[in-house]
Amino acid sequence: MISCSIERLEEKIKAFSKFGDTGRGGVTRYSLSKEAIEARNEVKRRMEALGATVVTDDMANMYATIPGTEDLPAIMSGSHLDSVKQGGNYDGILGVLAAMEVVETIVKEKIPHRHPITVVVWTNEEGARFEPAMMSSGVICGKFDKEVMLASEAKDIPGYTFGEALEKSGFKGDVSNRMSPEKYKALIELHIEQGPVLEKEGYDIGVVEGVCGMINYEFTFRGQAGHAGTTPMKYRKDALYAAVKTIQYLHDELDQLDSKLVYTTGKISAHPNIHTIIPEEVKFTLDARHQNPEVIRQVLEIIHKIPKIVEKCEVSYEEAWSRKTVQFTPELVDFVEKSAKDYGYTNMRLYSGPGHDAQYVVDVIPTAMIFVPSVGGHSHCELEYTPLENCLKGANVLLRTLLYIDQH
Amino acid sequence: MISCSIERLEEKIKAFSKFGDTGRGGVTRYSLSKEAIEARNEVKRRMEALGATVVTDDMANMYATIPGTEDLPAIMSGSHLDSVKQGGNYDGILGVLAAMEVVETIVKEKIPHRHPITVVVWTNEEGARFEPAMMSSGVICGKFDKEVMLASEAKDIPGYTFGEALEKSGFKGDVSNRMSPEKYKALIELHIEQGPVLEKEGYDIGVVEGVCGMINYEFTFRGQAGHAGTTPMKYRKDALYAAVKTIQYLHDELDQLDSKLVYTTGKISAHPNIHTIIPEEVKFTLDARHQNPEVIRQVLEIIHKIPKIVEKCEVSYEEAWSRKTVQFTPELVDFVEKSAKDYGYTNMRLYSGPGHDAQYVVDVIPTAMIFVPSVGGHSHCELEYTPLENCLKGANVLLRTLLYIDQH
Repeated sequence: MISCSIERLEEKIKAFSKFGDTGRGGVTRYSLSKEAIEARNEVKRRMEALGATVVTDDMANMYATIPGTEDLPAIMSGSHLDSVKQGGNYDGILGVLAAMEVVETIVKEKIPHRHPITVVVWTNEEGARFEPAMMSSGVICGKFDKEVMLASEAKDIPGYTFGEALEKSGFKGDVSNRMSPEKYKALIELHIEQGPVLEKEGYDIGVVEGVCGMINYEFTFRGQAGHAGTTPMKYRKDALYAAVKTIQYLHDELDQLDSKLVYTTGKISAHPNIHTIIPEEVKFTLDARHQNPEVIRQVLEIIHKIPKIVEKCEVSYEEAWSRKTVQFTPELVDFVEKSAKDYGYTNMRLYSGPGHDAQYVVDVIPTAMIFVPSVGGHSHCELEYTPLENCLKGANVLLRTLLYIDQH
Repeated sequence: MISCSIERLEEKIKAFSKFGDTGRGGVTRYSLSKEAIEARNEVKRRMEALGATVVTDDMANMYATIPGTEDLPAIMSGSHLDSVKQGGNYDGILGVLAAMEVVETIVKEKIPHRHPITVVVWTNEEGARFEPAMMSSGVICGKFDKEVMLASEAKDIPGYTFGEALEKSGFKGDVSNRMSPEKYKALIELHIEQGPVLEKEGYDIGVVEGVCGMINYEFTFRGQAGHAGTTPMKYRKDALYAAVKTIQYLHDELDQLDSKLVYTTGKISAHPNIHTIIPEEVKFTLDARHQNPEVIRQVLEIIHKIPKIVEKCEVSYEEAWSRKTVQFTPELVDFVEKSAKDYGYTNMRLYSGPGHDAQYVVDVIPTAMIFVPSVGGHSHCELEYTPLENCLKGANVLLRTLLYIDQH
């Protein structure tokens, strides 16, 4: 069976790891930064060398298209090439490089295809410098207001906006180039899992059925400050102890729900946070994700059962944000699974925990995703790593999936 | 029975509340600041008007002494006049003002006394700008190295030392003026309780038997960071959950010990403290205080029983500092109690949770303390308040205690 080239894929990964290289095995490549522009130019140069026509839309999303044998909408694949601060060499960029390798294989091997094939690079997926994440796929899919996004300020330079960075980038194109159902037939995004499941369970390929629904709540406990040395225990209103009891309650209850539920208390703060003062206010966050909305409903039920007063402290909470479960296009998910099986790659169906550009695109055109394993589950850090063989397997599944789509 | 003047005491409290007035019911009067110097000058002016001789020692501790009828060591009373940032009008300064009012009563009422009587102002009790707390009583009682203290840097101005502030203050005197057993017979320090016990239990006067022993530990939990959306619960090493379990364990076990034990987890931090990341490191502090060293030993036993691994996270801890229980001079403690009873004031024996200059002085000369109630237990804040009647009761107990000492 036809395969992408492991040598070429390795060369691509190495070449692009230079753009924003931290010197410690990772990259810092903020969206539209000098390093990201260099990486974009390299994508453009390589795609044009393969015969692609490259255009950008008004959010600088970049589309590099090779023609098909018929006048049909293009099949897209790609991801993003921006990173978080001191991120890794795989998150995002691997989806771009795998799509480029697939196109290169198709061109070099002269694999017939009816539809044009497009490598897409989405602008500012990470939201690491200009919030929010998935900004530009979000704008063109109607999730965000473009004017608000253009005004998004850099976290490091007050007053410097995403709009200004866009103007300067040289990649701002025409609104008419935006992805649309008239011009594009489907999107397949390859990405690293960013979690440990595929590696720990021993699978080559994740067949991504969708993106988990999630809720993020912030809890606040209001007690009373007091001197650690003078306030008898019976008179205390210790906001940290109230928070501790509530976190324990959440664990006890949430552990009863479906084992695929993940929930995290990632952030905690105490005020005044002095070792000799009883905490008067404590806040913590709860992030909970599951593919099944019914399980998320059960999580909410557990949250709503928290008493208004815990350990004499007032409890309040509010939803910081939430996301409904996103379902990818079942036919495409089946193609991904079938492609993995065709190659004899072990695979499992799963839902993505993190968000991806694909979750917005699926509202506009048929979409699915392919995951490859993340060693140790590391992501958004320099330790991020996917063995080359796994990258190749992902590229092969992508190639075959695109060809299945082409044939249907 | 003779009483101090409630009008004069009220005038003193109001007058001194101007030095560093925040305009919101409290003061910021860092040690040796312009505001503190103004307050010192006012103490000096008023004491000299009462016939006192005022000297300072090499740490700017100030001694204002009226003569007795015999050539005997002086009996001291006083406290400090510096405050924390946005502190109250009672912590420290009330002990100075009560001593001044007692001397004024003795002078105006011509109460005979054999011993000279000294109003003392200790320099930098709070350690709010120059660490540590109780710096100057500590130096003259041999607890701290003077050169190290002189080099203590201001928290707000890098490089600006306590020594420089001392030179500028105009209150640096001679080492020969230091408090010593040859020159001083005893110290009684009046102070606000800084806790809620006297008020809640309905007592006028706290007869302070000593200062609680304490330990302060810092605990560290090391887990593994991971994405909130991609790491199944079974693979997690959640440092915050390990900390939560341990705090709960500490509460469960420590609550079995003597009910006078107070313990506090005042400070907590999580790293990286991001709502979508499983905490990889969490630290919290444990402060525990009790007058009986055996109870502190039991606390340590409970700490030592914490497993090395909790919820798959590594646990470590270390003592940040500790203090042995300080016992005040029993004869003087009895005098305080007797004085309160003489006036018919309700009173209870207790141990101080916070530290005071008196705890260092007791190693040099006989010492005891008098507490007056803190409404709501508030201290080190602008809400700090002791009703005038309670202040007067404290001053009266101080007067009578000094006279008991004078007679023995």
